[in-house]
Amino acid sequence: MQLTTFTDYAFRLLIYLALDPERTATITEVSDYFGVSRHHMVKVVHRLGQGGFITTTRGKGGGLKLARKPADLKLGEVIRWMEPSLSLVECQHQGKEGRCRAAPSCRLNGILDRAMAAFLATLDRHSLADAIPPNGNSMARQDVISLPHANASPIAGKSK
Amino acid sequence: MQLTTFTDYAFRLLIYLALDPERTATITEVSDYFGVSRHHMVKVVHRLGQGGFITTTRGKGGGLKLARKPADLKLGEVIRWMEPSLSLVECQHQGKEGRCRAAPSCRLNGILDRAMAAFLATLDRHSLADAIPPNGNSMARQDVISLPHANASPIAGKSK
Repeated sequence: MQLTTFTDYAFRLLIYLALDPERTATITEVSDYFGVSRHHMVKVVHRLGQGGFITTTRGKGGGLKLARKPADLKLGEVIRWMEPSLSLVECQHQGKEGRCRAAPSCRLNGILDRAMAAFLATLDRHSLADAIPPNGNSMARQDVISLPHANASPIAGKSK
Repeated sequence: MQLTTFTDYAFRLLIYLALDPERTATITEVSDYFGVSRHHMVKVVHRLGQGGFITTTRGKGGGLKLARKPADLKLGEVIRWMEPSLSLVECQHQGKEGRCRAAPSCRLNGILDRAMAAFLATLDRHSLADAIPPNGNSMARQDVISLPHANASPIAGKSK
């Protein structure tokens, strides 16, 4: 039971942007920073843009920024928007008359729905601001400097 | 975000057995009933046996039965035992010093842990008995009769 890489990368990108919300980042910089495929990150950026989580501007000085304050961006929203499905088992995808022959006698679906609701409710009580340290920027700066290959970081870039 | 097929099949098998707990079923019968790979179901049976969820006996008259009453088998236990991992994102697999460079500044892990705990707590409040109808056996019998190819069902078998 895992989130997709798509959602994982979305969280990474949002956290990266939240660490220095005033600064405009680029896709190349973010994908280099995390050592992940730029192609994959382009798709994540597109999806987050569509959902109103980030703004993207083209041209010189353009790039990515959070569309909202970190405190106004609930973590549950991110999962609901990024995950292709929150149906935990096959028969939930396919409705009550799905492929599982036990479906007519099975009450598991409703219980799994309630468990998923509890999962999302917990995430809805937390914002992106809770996912970074209270003194995010300065702390992150220190972390990044202590890591190898820090050239791709917006924060390391600033502190050079 | 989905449970593995392994866990999905475990739930199907447990529900199948719970619908008629006194009867001994066979792996072939269960995999035929659900139209799933027997090979896969053998692995599920082995794992559920190891976890003390079902008993398996060899030879004539042998087969599968629940090791406990449905009411004594919490659904959260099944997921904890069957899922290869309950780490929602890559960095949770690898600990705090995992591959994600944002890990030192990231507080998402702890929030995801709390969300997963809420998910499992909901499932721990429900037993296998809650996953079948209160009048499980008779209701299931009717369901199965109304389905095509009912020959593989233990319940249809009884009602022949």
